[in-house]
Amino acid sequence: MLVMMKSHATKEEIEAVCRKIESLGYKAHPIPGITRTAIGITGNKGPLEPAAFESLPGVGDCVPVSKPYKLVGRELKEETTVVELGDGVQIGGRELAIIAGPCAVESRDQARSIARSVAAAGARLFRGGAYKPRTSPYSFQGLEEDGLKILAGIREDFGLKIVTEAIDVQSIELVEHYADVIQIGARNMQNFSLLKRAGRSKRPVLLKRGISATLDELLMAAEYILSEGNYNVILCERGIRTFADHTRNTLDLSVIPAVQRLSHLPIIVDPSHGTGRREKVLPLSRAAIAVGADGLIVEVHHRPEEALSDGNQSIQPPELEQLIQQIGQIAPILNRTL
Amino acid sequence: MLVMMKSHATKEEIEAVCRKIESLGYKAHPIPGITRTAIGITGNKGPLEPAAFESLPGVGDCVPVSKPYKLVGRELKEETTVVELGDGVQIGGRELAIIAGPCAVESRDQARSIARSVAAAGARLFRGGAYKPRTSPYSFQGLEEDGLKILAGIREDFGLKIVTEAIDVQSIELVEHYADVIQIGARNMQNFSLLKRAGRSKRPVLLKRGISATLDELLMAAEYILSEGNYNVILCERGIRTFADHTRNTLDLSVIPAVQRLSHLPIIVDPSHGTGRREKVLPLSRAAIAVGADGLIVEVHHRPEEALSDGNQSIQPPELEQLIQQIGQIAPILNRTL
Amino acid sequence: MLVMMKSHATKEEIEAVCRKIESLGYKAHPIPGITRTAIGITGNKGPLEPAAFESLPGVGDCVPVSKPYKLVGRELKEETTVVELGDGVQIGGRELAIIAGPCAVESRDQARSIARSVAAAGARLFRGGAYKPRTSPYSFQGLEEDGLKILAGIREDFGLKIVTEAIDVQSIELVEHYADVIQIGARNMQNFSLLKRAGRSKRPVLLKRGISATLDELLMAAEYILSEGNYNVILCERGIRTFADHTRNTLDLSVIPAVQRLSHLPIIVDPSHGTGRREKVLPLSRAAIAVGADGLIVEVHHRPEEALSDGNQSIQPPELEQLIQQIGQIAPILNRTL
Amino acid sequence: MLVMMKSHATKEEIEAVCRKIESLGYKAHPIPGITRTAIGITGNKGPLEPAAFESLPGVGDCVPVSKPYKLVGRELKEETTVVELGDGVQIGGRELAIIAGPCAVESRDQARSIARSVAAAGARLFRGGAYKPRTSPYSFQGLEEDGLKILAGIREDFGLKIVTEAIDVQSIELVEHYADVIQIGARNMQNFSLLKRAGRSKRPVLLKRGISATLDELLMAAEYILSEGNYNVILCERGIRTFADHTRNTLDLSVIPAVQRLSHLPIIVDPSHGTGRREKVLPLSRAAIAVGADGLIVEVHHRPEEALSDGNQSIQPPELEQLIQQIGQIAPILNRTL
Repeated sequence: MLVMMKSHATKEEIEAVCRKIESLGYKAHPIPGITRTAIGITGNKGPLEPAAFESLPGVGDCVPVSKPYKLVGRELKEETTVVELGDGVQIGGRELAIIAGPCAVESRDQARSIARSVAAAGARLFRGGAYKPRTSPYSFQGLEEDGLKILAGIREDFGLKIVTEAIDVQSIELVEHYADVIQIGARNMQNFSLLKRAGRSKRPVLLKRGISATLDELLMAAEYILSEGNYNVILCERGIRTFADHTRNTLDLSVIPAVQRLSHLPIIVDPSHGTGRREKVLPLSRAAIAVGADGLIVEVHHRPEEALSDGNQSIQPPELEQLIQQIGQIAPILNRTL
Repeated sequence: MLVMMKSHATKEEIEAVCRKIESLGYKAHPIPGITRTAIGITGNKGPLEPAAFESLPGVGDCVPVSKPYKLVGRELKEETTVVELGDGVQIGGRELAIIAGPCAVESRDQARSIARSVAAAGARLFRGGAYKPRTSPYSFQGLEEDGLKILAGIREDFGLKIVTEAIDVQSIELVEHYADVIQIGARNMQNFSLLKRAGRSKRPVLLKRGISATLDELLMAAEYILSEGNYNVILCERGIRTFADHTRNTLDLSVIPAVQRLSHLPIIVDPSHGTGRREKVLPLSRAAIAVGADGLIVEVHHRPEEALSDGNQSIQPPELEQLIQQIGQIAPILNRTL
Repeated sequence: MLVMMKSHATKEEIEAVCRKIESLGYKAHPIPGITRTAIGITGNKGPLEPAAFESLPGVGDCVPVSKPYKLVGRELKEETTVVELGDGVQIGGRELAIIAGPCAVESRDQARSIARSVAAAGARLFRGGAYKPRTSPYSFQGLEEDGLKILAGIREDFGLKIVTEAIDVQSIELVEHYADVIQIGARNMQNFSLLKRAGRSKRPVLLKRGISATLDELLMAAEYILSEGNYNVILCERGIRTFADHTRNTLDLSVIPAVQRLSHLPIIVDPSHGTGRREKVLPLSRAAIAVGADGLIVEVHHRPEEALSDGNQSIQPPELEQLIQQIGQIAPILNRTL
Repeated sequence: MLVMMKSHATKEEIEAVCRKIESLGYKAHPIPGITRTAIGITGNKGPLEPAAFESLPGVGDCVPVSKPYKLVGRELKEETTVVELGDGVQIGGRELAIIAGPCAVESRDQARSIARSVAAAGARLFRGGAYKPRTSPYSFQGLEEDGLKILAGIREDFGLKIVTEAIDVQSIELVEHYADVIQIGARNMQNFSLLKRAGRSKRPVLLKRGISATLDELLMAAEYILSEGNYNVILCERGIRTFADHTRNTLDLSVIPAVQRLSHLPIIVDPSHGTGRREKVLPLSRAAIAVGADGLIVEVHHRPEEALSDGNQSIQPPELEQLIQQIGQIAPILNRTL
C-alpha cells in the first residue's frame, strides 16, 4: 500500500506516519515527489487496512498497489529517477550516458590505453570487469582487486566514472569501495542474496536483465534492491535468449518503452552483449537511442583480436567515435543531449 | 554455381552461356550488375563442374556458392535491389518507403477515410487486407474481391500504391490483378506452393518473416520466389515469438543489418505486429529507421476501438503524422530521404 | 453456443433444431454422444440468444462456449474420438497406433523394402512423403503422384494403411484419392485454405503442431477442419522451436495431457522430427507412450545414410522392432494394447 | 588433457603423475575407473604438451580433450557415477531415487506430517526448502536455520535422507551441516561463487538446470563443482522457458539421453516445476522414468491449497503413492528397481 501525503504535509507529519508504519512491524519508504510525498509500505504479508493511516494528520490517500512491485513503479513515484554520480555525470537525466570500455581489465596498460580513447571520444563513464563470471571454470576469471585498483587509477587520471561488476557478497565490498556504480550481471539478476546486499550499499547499482527474464521479473529484481533502501538503480537491456541464431542474443528494444511506462527507473542498452557481433553494435546503438534509452554500455577494445574475452563483440576506438557522433545526431529528436 | 561474365562481355555471349546451362538441364538466372553480369545456375542436385563453362567466350570466373541460397545473396548481386512500383515510388532506394493503412478493409467508407489520412500524412503506399488469415474460423475473414476493388479505387483516387495479402493460389490471381505489391504473410512464409506461384507473378512480393523463422529460413523462402524468376522481393521483419510477454511479439531489429550483409533484397519493418501495442509503434518505428531499414509497414485506423481486427496495435492518423515527422529527422543520418 | 438435447430427444426433434439453426444463417453440427446429442452452432459473429432454441421440443440446455474453439472441445463431446480406418485399424482407441516408414518415398524398391519391415515389426500404418515441403527450392521435393501410386501398391500388398502429406489444394485431391489419412505438416498448420479444404475431405486428417504453435493455436487449426464438417482429426506433437540445441526441436510431451484435458481428439507423437536424432527416438517413444499418447509416427529407413531427406533421424528396422517391443511393455500400465 | 594410466599402474605411479602435474602449477584429478585410472588436468590456460607426461612410469596415453568440459565427461570416466548417501540410499544406481516433500518447510507440523506420508509411500529422500529464492522480496522467504533443524529431525525420526537448497555462501554452511544433499536451484545454476563453494563441500550436490540453460552450460556449471574436488553431483531437469503457455515451463525430457551420452553424472527430473500443474505431475513422472531418468524430485503437500508457495504444482500423498506404484511398473523395462 502507498500512503500519499497531502501536498502541504509537514516533515513532522511525514515522520509520524513512518513511525506508525514501523510500530506495526512494517517498513516505511518515504519518497519525496515534486508536489507531494508518497510513503511505500513493505513487509506486510497480506493486504493492509487503509483506515489505520487515513486518519493521521497530513495523509491524503491510501492507495492499494495491485502490481507485485511497489517501489520501482510509477504509481509510487511519477518522475523518472536521475542517478547522480558527481561532477555533473548523471544517468536518467537529459544527457545520454555513454559507458564504454573493455569486457575485462586485462592489464594496467590495456585498460589505460582504452580509457584514454574512451575519454577522448567524449564518454564520461568507463566499464571494465575485474570479476568475470565465465561459463567455464577454466576461462580467465579477472584480475580481482588488482583490476579494481587499475580502475580507480583511471578515474583519478582520466576523470571517468567507473562501472564494474560484483559477483558475490565478497566482491561487492571491494567494488563499492573502488567504483562509482556496482554492476550486477545478467546471470545474477535473480541472485537474491546479492541483490539484497546491493540494496544496502551506498553506490548506485546497474542491474542487467537476465537472459530469459520477463519484464516483471526484471522489475521485481530491482524491487529487491530498492526494498533494502537503495533507490539508485539503473536497468539495462542486454539481449534475451531466443531461437534466432544470427546474433548471440536477441536485443529486445521494445522493453525500453515498456519499462518507462511502468517504472521510474532509468534504463540503458548494451548493444555489445545484445548482439555479440561487432558490426551490429553501431546500428543497434542508433536504434537504442532512437527508441528512447537513457544511454549505452558498450565494449571497446583497442586490439579486439587479442582480448581475453568477448573480442568478437568489442568495437575499436574509431568506431566508438563514430557511434557517439551518430547518436549525437539522434539525441535532439528525443530532446536529449550528449 | 555462379558464372561471372567479364565486364565487356556481349549480350550474345551472355545468351550463349544461358543456352549452354539450359542444354544441360539446369536453369539460368542472368543478373546484370553495374560492372558485369552474373549468371546463377539452379536446378542442379550436386556440385557442378566449372570447366564446362570457363572456356566459353566472355566468361570470367566460375564461383561455387557455399550458402544454401544463391539468388538472394550478395555474392550473386552486390548492389541492393530497388523495387520500382511506378510513379517514382520505390522500395530499397534512397527514399524510405512508408506503407500505411488498416489491418483489414472493412468497408468502402472505412478504407477511403483512412486512405485520405495516409495520403495527407505523406505516405505513398497503402496497406489493407482483403483476405485475412485468422487463428479462428469464426473471426472476420475479409471482404475478398470486394475488398480488392475498394483498394483499386483508392489507388486511382488517392495515387497510393496498394499492398495486400494473398493467402492461397486462388487469391493470388486476384491480388496480382488489383494490387501493386503481393504480400505473403508470416504464417505462409513456408507455404512453398504459394511462394512458387508468387515467383511466377509479375508483381513484386512483400515477404514477411515467419514468427519463428531463422534468418536462413527467411532467405530460403525468398529464394523460392526468385528461383521461379521473380526478383522483386521485399523482406519484412514483423516480430518473433519468444518468452517475453510485454509485447505480442519481440521485434528483432538486429535482423535488418544481418539481412543487409547477406542479401541484396530490401527489408522493411512492421512495428504494429512487431509489438502488438499501439503506444510502442512510434518508438519502435524510430528504432527501425535508425537501425537502417528501408521502410515501414504500419497499421492505421481512424477508429481503432471499432476495428474488426488488430485494433490494439493500430495508430490513429495524427500519430502517423508524428511518426513520419520523427523518422524524417532520423533519415538524413542514414543518408536517406522521405 | 451448444444446444444440448434431452437424452430422450427424437431424431426428428434433433433435425428440427438443426433446421432452425440453419434458417438463421448459421451452421449446425449435431454430435451424438453416448447419453445425449449436442448440437454445435458455428457461423455466428457475436453471442447468440439462448431463448431462440430453449423453447424447441427436445432441447435440454443452451450452453455458451467460452473457449475460442467449440467443436474440438470436450464441452461439446466428452468421449475421446476414435478414428476408424477400416480393417479394425483405429487411432484413439484402446490399441496404440504405430505409423512407420521413410521420410520420403524415394523409389518403388526403397518404399516396398521398408514397408516389408514395417509390416513385419507389427505396425499397421505406413508413412512416406510423396510431396515434401523443403526449406530449399533446390532440395528433393518428392515423387508426387508416382509416389502416391507406390504407396497405394503398398496398401494392397502389405495391408498397411497409408498416411501421407498434402501440401496444397492441388496435391490434396490426389492424396485423398490414394491414401487413408491426409497429413498436414507443421509448416501448414495455419495454412487456412488447406485446412478448410481438408475439412471438406472424407479422409481423416493428421494435423501436426506448428513449430511455434501454442496449444490454443493447434486446437483452433483443428477447429478449421471440423468446422467444415470433417470430424476425423488426429493431432500430432512433433517438437517445438526453443533455444535448446542438443536436439533439432524440443519435444513437448506435456502437451499430450493438456490436449486430452481440453479436446476429444486423439493425439500422437512424432519422436523423429521431435528430436532429429536417431539415438533419441527410442527413449522418447517410450516416454510418449508413458505420458499417454495414442500412438507414434516414426521415420524408418533401411539405409539411413543414403536417405534423400532426414536420414539423421531415421531408425533402422531392427530398432523399430525393439521400439515396438518396449512400448508394448508400457502399454498395459495405461490400459492400452498394441 | 587426460592422462590415462595403464591398467596395471601402481598407486605410487599414479601419485607420481599427480605430483608432476601439480609441480607444473596445474591441478590433478585422479579418477579411478574399473579397469584403469584417468587423471584429469585442470588449471592450464592453453593446450598442454603430452610429452611431459607420456614418459612417466605407468602412463598409457595422453588424450587431449576437445569438449569445453573435462571432469563431467564420459571421456574421462565411462561408468555412470553413483552417489552414495548411506544406508543403501543411492542416486544413479540401479534403484530409482524418489525425492519427495513440500516446496517449503512451513512449520514443524506441516513438514513432519508430509514426511510421514512420504516415508509411507516408499520414498527414501525428503525435500523441503528452508531458504526460498522468491521472485518477490515480499514473498515468504523460508524458515532458514529453524527449517533446517526441522529437516534434521525428520531424518532422525523417519529415516529419510534430506535434500534442501542453499542460496548463498552463508546458507550453504548451514545446509551442509544439517542436510544430506545440497540443492542448487535453477536461478543459481550460473552463480559461480556458489558453485565453487559447493565444490569444496563434502556433501553431494543436486544441480538444477537453469530455465534457459543449454546442455553445455549445464555441464559447465557441474564442471565448476567437480573442478573444486566434489565429484558427487546429480543433475536435474526441471523445465525450460519457451513460448508454450499450457504449462509453467516446458519439460525437456530429451535432455536426459543427451546428458547420459556425454556425461557420467546421474540425472533426475522435477515434474513439479517442470509443468507447474498438479494434474500433469503423474503423466510426466511416468515419461521421465520411461525416458531413462535416474529418479524424480516431486513436490508433495498434504494441503496444497494452503501451501505458502507452489501449491498449484504439489500433489497430495495418495497421488504420490499412485505415482510410485506406476513408475514401479515401468522401472523393470529399463532394468531399474524401486
